[in-house]
Amino acid sequence: MPVNLVATPVAELYPVPGVRWGITEAGIRKVGRKDLSVLLLEEGASVGAVFTQNRFCAAPVQICREHLAKNMGIRAMLINTGNANAGTGADGLNRAQASCIALARELNLSPEQILPFSTGVIMEPLPHDRIAAGLPAALADARENNWGQAAEAIMTTDTVAKAFSTRIKLGGTDVTITGISKGAGMIRPNMATMLGFLATDACVSPALMNQLATELAEGSFNRVTVDGDTSTNDSFVVVASNKAAHAPITSLDSAEGQALRAAMLAIARQLAQAIVRDGEGATKFITIQVEGGKTGAECRQVAYAIAHSPLVKTAFFASDPNLGRILAAVGYAGINDLDQTRIDLYLDDVLVAKNGGRHVDYVEADGQRVMKQSEITVRVLLGRGTAADTVWTCDLSYDYVKINADYRS
Amino acid sequence: MPVNLVATPVAELYPVPGVRWGITEAGIRKVGRKDLSVLLLEEGASVGAVFTQNRFCAAPVQICREHLAKNMGIRAMLINTGNANAGTGADGLNRAQASCIALARELNLSPEQILPFSTGVIMEPLPHDRIAAGLPAALADARENNWGQAAEAIMTTDTVAKAFSTRIKLGGTDVTITGISKGAGMIRPNMATMLGFLATDACVSPALMNQLATELAEGSFNRVTVDGDTSTNDSFVVVASNKAAHAPITSLDSAEGQALRAAMLAIARQLAQAIVRDGEGATKFITIQVEGGKTGAECRQVAYAIAHSPLVKTAFFASDPNLGRILAAVGYAGINDLDQTRIDLYLDDVLVAKNGGRHVDYVEADGQRVMKQSEITVRVLLGRGTAADTVWTCDLSYDYVKINADYRS
Repeated sequence: MPVNLVATPVAELYPVPGVRWGITEAGIRKVGRKDLSVLLLEEGASVGAVFTQNRFCAAPVQICREHLAKNMGIRAMLINTGNANAGTGADGLNRAQASCIALARELNLSPEQILPFSTGVIMEPLPHDRIAAGLPAALADARENNWGQAAEAIMTTDTVAKAFSTRIKLGGTDVTITGISKGAGMIRPNMATMLGFLATDACVSPALMNQLATELAEGSFNRVTVDGDTSTNDSFVVVASNKAAHAPITSLDSAEGQALRAAMLAIARQLAQAIVRDGEGATKFITIQVEGGKTGAECRQVAYAIAHSPLVKTAFFASDPNLGRILAAVGYAGINDLDQTRIDLYLDDVLVAKNGGRHVDYVEADGQRVMKQSEITVRVLLGRGTAADTVWTCDLSYDYVKINADYRS
Repeated sequence: MPVNLVATPVAELYPVPGVRWGITEAGIRKVGRKDLSVLLLEEGASVGAVFTQNRFCAAPVQICREHLAKNMGIRAMLINTGNANAGTGADGLNRAQASCIALARELNLSPEQILPFSTGVIMEPLPHDRIAAGLPAALADARENNWGQAAEAIMTTDTVAKAFSTRIKLGGTDVTITGISKGAGMIRPNMATMLGFLATDACVSPALMNQLATELAEGSFNRVTVDGDTSTNDSFVVVASNKAAHAPITSLDSAEGQALRAAMLAIARQLAQAIVRDGEGATKFITIQVEGGKTGAECRQVAYAIAHSPLVKTAFFASDPNLGRILAAVGYAGINDLDQTRIDLYLDDVLVAKNGGRHVDYVEADGQRVMKQSEITVRVLLGRGTAADTVWTCDLSYDYVKINADYRS
């Protein structure tokens, strides 16, 4: 059961001028499910992207990097579920490239203008012939108001389609921002999530797009974790179709640049948090806020140690205020000169530990009350500086084990 | 169900001359269970120890370090279960010290000659008065052939008492080595396990004891992981009672030093592996062997990434050869210049992936056959050097979640 997450109604997902989605069933792994999506961009769109830092990155990620480096103007993206095309060696690169060539032929483009994305089981050969065979149907389906269907088509173990949309004014002009994402397990993004696509019709100089993608990922997908497993296929793509009438944004620090970035970050964060809310087996949404560090990096390190501790995660699942487990995780996070006598721990507004020990006024009933909630904030004060950072995660339940023991079968 | 682990029969646990255990019920957390043990050493014993690297180390760990530094000759150890006395601040230190003072009074020793150990729930006040009240009964029970009972008395979520024993000849003299350990969850020892006590009547110069303890821990307790959570209380103590008739060992590189170290390492490794075999919810015992690295440290880093991946661990639980998850873990282990096209993966003798891709001869039936075993070796060849290292772990099952969601209640 996802935690306080329902799919956004299709009517509330605004189309982005210049951006179309087409979807079909290609029978990649199982029959009878939409598993192939094509994203079509009109000429002149700006594209930025960030990818997994997993050294075992998938074939499509390698092809994406090559095609973006060619700088020939990205015009289409090709996304399949059911197969990750990772751990597939040279043969996997050939199959990903063959899929791009097939789509390029249909669209009369160069293969380098196409970005491929795959998600699903690792180390299985990609059925690129079935992808090629599915392309005409996907292209026939292409339209601007297809975001909701695209969000459904890229799901794997997700239980809720993840799509969010907003509109802002830029230089007096209405601008739309719409994005989708997928992911529920193998989630500890490092520069991106499993798959995320965020588009706007705002006019943004192509030179800014990678910076924009990186900054958005830093504030959203790079702050969530389900199980600490960084996927081989993580990809986050940001598109500006440049169709809106305002003057082009040439700096993210201009008033318009800041407004656009803030609005896009809000959507990116919703998409990233939706992945945690729909985390495999999740029953609780946990915000881990670490303050008083010397650097943001060490705050993040502590937050991730807590977020990845199976003992902390199972305690949340059980609604058991066994909060010493949080202190233990703080202690092994890897800060060598950490002084335990300066550490305070809050659960929402309840002061649990003060100066490294149980607070005198803390009673278990207070901890119990917060632990029963479906949304909980853990706040750790390190008492050694002014830096802070936040990470979002979920609990670890029987169903996480069930889902991952059963996946594939 | 522990994996291929049964308690060693008490008759096969050889007493160590000069070392006695006394055990009693002190009612520390629950009534009707043996929860307090005293280890008594005759004068002249050499003691070495290593402790958790968790910065939130427990009060008894801090006291142990202080007392060892005083170098007054350790004569007794005091071990309680049911309460970890961690996350307890200055009050916790006082209570641990009060327990040492109570035992010192009974034995007519200085408190600095006593090492305290606690294991159990974190952030609860230690009932040191109940410990003091239990001491006379524990001391009345003290005898040399009490190792099996001590192994039972230090258990928490363990399901099998962990004790092993051996005899070797040193300079023509029979020497005994006997050890016990406890631990099943919160296991990713860093310089030790939850609790481990290893004693010999061999004669070893006191100056060598910390080196011996460190080397033994490195080859045993520091190579096992259940859930990646480093405990606040990890302690591993090595005792030489110096009662045997051979000439004292003054260097671990002498023939006798090497023989003793090898025999002690074998027992330490059995104790450490027993913790994994009895890992919370474990159904499989997994050996992760990483070869062809530039350094041992990077091999260990890769081995731990695999050993800690919830996705890999659940696949083992399911006997599902979803082995791409292992490649993904290799990829995110943090070796930045890793070349995926040089990596080979074996499951026991089955070559699964060659040069970073699925091996052409690999068929899933072969992977399936190995995954169904209760003991599995994962072998990763990094193809970048000659270093190697090995880590032992277990799978992640429903029961891990159940045990940790229910613990305390």
